[in-house]
Amino acid sequence: MNDDRGDFGSDSHAGVHPAVLRAIASANVGQVHSYGDDPYTEAALARFREIFGDKTQVYFVFNGTAANVLAVSAINRPFEAVICARSAHLNNDECGAPERFTGCKLLSVPTVDGKLTVEAIEAEVRGRGDEHQVRPKLVSVTQATELGTVYRPEEIGALADFAHSKGMRLHMDGARLANAAAALGIGLRALTADLGVDVLTFGGTKNGLLLGEAVVFFDPRLARDFLFIRKQGMQLASKMRFLAVQFDALLSDDLWLQSAGHANAMARRLASRVGGIPGLRVTQRVEANAVFARLPREAIARVRRDYFFYTWDEALGEVRWMTSFATSEADVDGLADSIQNALAEGSHHV
Amino acid sequence: MNDDRGDFGSDSHAGVHPAVLRAIASANVGQVHSYGDDPYTEAALARFREIFGDKTQVYFVFNGTAANVLAVSAINRPFEAVICARSAHLNNDECGAPERFTGCKLLSVPTVDGKLTVEAIEAEVRGRGDEHQVRPKLVSVTQATELGTVYRPEEIGALADFAHSKGMRLHMDGARLANAAAALGIGLRALTADLGVDVLTFGGTKNGLLLGEAVVFFDPRLARDFLFIRKQGMQLASKMRFLAVQFDALLSDDLWLQSAGHANAMARRLASRVGGIPGLRVTQRVEANAVFARLPREAIARVRRDYFFYTWDEALGEVRWMTSFATSEADVDGLADSIQNALAEGSHHV
Amino acid sequence: MNDDRGDFGSDSHAGVHPAVLRAIASANVGQVHSYGDDPYTEAALARFREIFGDKTQVYFVFNGTAANVLAVSAINRPFEAVICARSAHLNNDECGAPERFTGCKLLSVPTVDGKLTVEAIEAEVRGRGDEHQVRPKLVSVTQATELGTVYRPEEIGALADFAHSKGMRLHMDGARLANAAAALGIGLRALTADLGVDVLTFGGTKNGLLLGEAVVFFDPRLARDFLFIRKQGMQLASKMRFLAVQFDALLSDDLWLQSAGHANAMARRLASRVGGIPGLRVTQRVEANAVFARLPREAIARVRRDYFFYTWDEALGEVRWMTSFATSEADVDGLADSIQNALAEGSHHV
Amino acid sequence: MNDDRGDFGSDSHAGVHPAVLRAIASANVGQVHSYGDDPYTEAALARFREIFGDKTQVYFVFNGTAANVLAVSAINRPFEAVICARSAHLNNDECGAPERFTGCKLLSVPTVDGKLTVEAIEAEVRGRGDEHQVRPKLVSVTQATELGTVYRPEEIGALADFAHSKGMRLHMDGARLANAAAALGIGLRALTADLGVDVLTFGGTKNGLLLGEAVVFFDPRLARDFLFIRKQGMQLASKMRFLAVQFDALLSDDLWLQSAGHANAMARRLASRVGGIPGLRVTQRVEANAVFARLPREAIARVRRDYFFYTWDEALGEVRWMTSFATSEADVDGLADSIQNALAEGSHHV
Repeated sequence: MNDDRGDFGSDSHAGVHPAVLRAIASANVGQVHSYGDDPYTEAALARFREIFGDKTQVYFVFNGTAANVLAVSAINRPFEAVICARSAHLNNDECGAPERFTGCKLLSVPTVDGKLTVEAIEAEVRGRGDEHQVRPKLVSVTQATELGTVYRPEEIGALADFAHSKGMRLHMDGARLANAAAALGIGLRALTADLGVDVLTFGGTKNGLLLGEAVVFFDPRLARDFLFIRKQGMQLASKMRFLAVQFDALLSDDLWLQSAGHANAMARRLASRVGGIPGLRVTQRVEANAVFARLPREAIARVRRDYFFYTWDEALGEVRWMTSFATSEADVDGLADSIQNALAEGSHHV
Repeated sequence: MNDDRGDFGSDSHAGVHPAVLRAIASANVGQVHSYGDDPYTEAALARFREIFGDKTQVYFVFNGTAANVLAVSAINRPFEAVICARSAHLNNDECGAPERFTGCKLLSVPTVDGKLTVEAIEAEVRGRGDEHQVRPKLVSVTQATELGTVYRPEEIGALADFAHSKGMRLHMDGARLANAAAALGIGLRALTADLGVDVLTFGGTKNGLLLGEAVVFFDPRLARDFLFIRKQGMQLASKMRFLAVQFDALLSDDLWLQSAGHANAMARRLASRVGGIPGLRVTQRVEANAVFARLPREAIARVRRDYFFYTWDEALGEVRWMTSFATSEADVDGLADSIQNALAEGSHHV
Repeated sequence: MNDDRGDFGSDSHAGVHPAVLRAIASANVGQVHSYGDDPYTEAALARFREIFGDKTQVYFVFNGTAANVLAVSAINRPFEAVICARSAHLNNDECGAPERFTGCKLLSVPTVDGKLTVEAIEAEVRGRGDEHQVRPKLVSVTQATELGTVYRPEEIGALADFAHSKGMRLHMDGARLANAAAALGIGLRALTADLGVDVLTFGGTKNGLLLGEAVVFFDPRLARDFLFIRKQGMQLASKMRFLAVQFDALLSDDLWLQSAGHANAMARRLASRVGGIPGLRVTQRVEANAVFARLPREAIARVRRDYFFYTWDEALGEVRWMTSFATSEADVDGLADSIQNALAEGSHHV
Repeated sequence: MNDDRGDFGSDSHAGVHPAVLRAIASANVGQVHSYGDDPYTEAALARFREIFGDKTQVYFVFNGTAANVLAVSAINRPFEAVICARSAHLNNDECGAPERFTGCKLLSVPTVDGKLTVEAIEAEVRGRGDEHQVRPKLVSVTQATELGTVYRPEEIGALADFAHSKGMRLHMDGARLANAAAALGIGLRALTADLGVDVLTFGGTKNGLLLGEAVVFFDPRLARDFLFIRKQGMQLASKMRFLAVQFDALLSDDLWLQSAGHANAMARRLASRVGGIPGLRVTQRVEANAVFARLPREAIARVRRDYFFYTWDEALGEVRWMTSFATSEADVDGLADSIQNALAEGSHHV
């Protein structure tokens, strides 16, 4: 659809960061071996190891669906379960890809802010054991969450410890890990491997890549068969250099951090502009690059004349505004003005 | 691996055609909706419909593995079988992705030149019927084949007629359809839809795209659920515009034809240069962009000092040289000289 | 485990009804064709058609897991979802067999009494539609439920109407359909096909068979490929006559009704004996052959010295007592006395 | 189908051995725990361990399809392949159940007599290694084969050694292991565990059980998750005692050996009666309980008026006659006479 409105629909509505596009062009030189046996892939893997540690095993795939599903497949047998938030992308937005490809059942847990806690997942572990029920094997958290909130390091650490104490593993869906790291001011490794995360989906697409996600194993034994899993999972790129070089660019000169930090700042700006307006309530803590808010349906309709964004909960009149590396302050101010006007107009009618 | 040798390893060792890269850059403007609801995707689909007919349904996916597997999944239930050549990519080079994702059994048929015939597949259909055996539902041909040969239109037509007469469908793996069309001097539609092909994998990556394949349905009823199949198959790109715009470029100004025609010409040039050399035997008709040949192992080793290429059959001493849009005449001549020298050198020793 | 205690653990702890065992022996004569092409199977199918209608398609499988999973597989594609109660066997007691075999996601809904309502499932249908989420295709109810409750005919009818209005189908897990029919005093067809049920799992094992369940399709189009689904689902018995003849016996002379009616009566007897005892609360309506109750943990432990039964909810101190065709009045009275004593003893101590 | 003809169609056309039926009846006493936690199952497992060794892990399932498929699932990940004979039941008669449930590809090898050799399977192992192709993990042999032939112990041993030397495992489909053991005069353990077989499907149904097969692991580590695999594979019987007690009977008083030995003797008798008749050629060595033969189509048609049996290869005019524990000498002689007459009659006409 062609749409001239301002766009706060998704961080994947943005294009490719110019530095990433330049990197792609720079790799378009001559012939290189395919499937990852090339110097660009080598360089990108080295960059990951600098950041996450020497033993890190990294595999590029095409999208986030695959990164999460293949990570599960690397760890779980089909009779083993994944515990995740009900709102997790893995549970809610993948059209059953995890179930179909891995055969595993997801045990989804309701949350208020998209964040699992040890208390919330204990019940899914307790009492299981015989073969009539699936065996929990993996806990999956999303960082930052689908609700724009961010786990504190100690919260991740507690989940990792609990998981490990039960013979389970911890997966982090880091489609927006950069946003979480920027929000917390903590490094990527300190937020993942150092806290006990076993396998990470490191997001690229939502942070300025053309496409690409990385599956990052901190325990190399878990990666033992991953070349086969990726290939059988239909996620092996022949011209791998063009995935790899994007990650190299993203991890160079803190591009990942600047882009995510900017997106976060734009969300905070929006929240601070609209947070105090009567008739509007921000419904989730604004910690990453999303603002969730409830406002009257008439106001939503008015704002929508000029801005595209998604309704999150039709019944509640809750909407989501997302920002990205490509969102400008002027974009935010325009949206904030539009919201303000819509709500002011609404109050006249009342 | 960094490799300074000349490269006749694969058409996927080439990079991105400059016109395709320019198209990507040109689409990197502003925000657009994701998942295909954007003007670039609309334009690319229109281009496909111009070429293949108004009712054509087209879906972009990331790679050839997925294009083929998802096409099978759109047509077959898990208890239905695919008949294909033993040498088919689907059977031989996908790490069992078809079986895992679709649950279907492949009934593979030996061939001498990679091409199925009605005679060859009849035996796989005959005598099946009860539930103890899988039910053949799809015949899959590769055009051009993995052995560099090309089906004549009447051969495809005969397979289509046979398949339809048995209640089956015909799939064409057209990862190199452009090469076949260039070789035959026949249009894309005349080689597919008009012959009775039901679903086509239209290749992009091997013909100069960064990445991307299209699943093309000529019977729109077969595509009814394909949006769901693609998503559950982990093949839905969020920034779809960047897949779509590449295909738009490929189908514009006959870029697909020029690129494939050039690659074919380079293979023919190579074949004509080396075909008459004593000690070397070209083992398959050179109709697309590959040359298969047997030559003494010592000669292979000598040529390999300067050129990278794959051994096809270790036992036979058979090798494969592949050309692409990026192969130059000088590249070919260099390889031909090297082969000539290696064989001449060999004969001295004899 | 050898266990000399009285057993209220499960209706599958009972053996084979003597009439069923006689039927098995009577079919053990000579050689007959395998896989269902035999007169015993023919006779059993005829019996099903007398009861459920001429167009009914019936297939025998080994157990309830398979009957339910294969029914789903006959109706759903892998990207289509099943809506069921959280407490449904399908969701809770099959070790993820539905997900693994069908690839489908289950959308489970919390209930208080194991019964779905239109209101409860509407939310799982609303708002779905695009390919990011699974498409609801099947509603599955258990009759009688896992909590010993029974749907009224109008409740089933309302669910069927709702499902059909949304393009969905209604599956009934009737592992204990006989108990429901006995409880309601309504015929098998009136409780299923006549209310709009599309496919039924008709239970045998829990009602006195050695083993065996029947998948019963009321719309024959749904059964079109079921021979293949059953075979690929590893559920085709070679000596089919011995499954079929058991169902023939079960459906003859109202054996199914007598057995289930007796089991129900035993549960009612137990409930009426213990329902009024101070310190014990019956937690679900006793409509079929189970009694759920809460009582002090010390009392549970005391009763368990002499009787085997399962704790249903450890946290709540809730237990389940199940009866079967093989439970006698003396068995029930013995258990009731034991409960009474245990609670009396407990109150002394207080 | 009701069929009054003599029946040489299959060993699964026979009923239940009287001793097995008595055992079933004897276990129909009182209530016992379900799912295998009962004294009958305990006794049967002890019997298996007496025969096959103390560490043997045994699991009962409903049929041969499941026994083979679940054995594969216990050993292979979905990207790992099974090497088997083209004529193997696993490959040819299971409607793709192995592919669907395990996701694995079968690499089937043509044979003349149904028996794999190290030479025949070497080619399927050689040259594999990277992730583009499935990784061979399991070799599966059928003993006795589907063609009525029997592996010598040293042939099994050689295959086991080869498999182990390549990091693979050896599975034996022993649906007719009893026939092989009877033919060779060698014990069950000496034919399996002692030769290096890793996992065995021990057949019951074809040797006189009502239904039931046992999956027997000789390396207990392979069985670690099998309870879950069996349950998720829809093969857990609730009234397990009735599977177990049949195996107890089969393994008592050498019933397995007498039944199989008798079936073998009947096949040998048939072969010796018809082997010398002009116009008929026995096409496979008669080592177990099947006779394969070619004879003129007119003769086949004549014999079929009085006897039911299957055509094995329509094109060749090859038929299969199978015997079982229930085949009498009179049955065999009747068939032999009929064949003789049919061929004699045929020669008159010529």
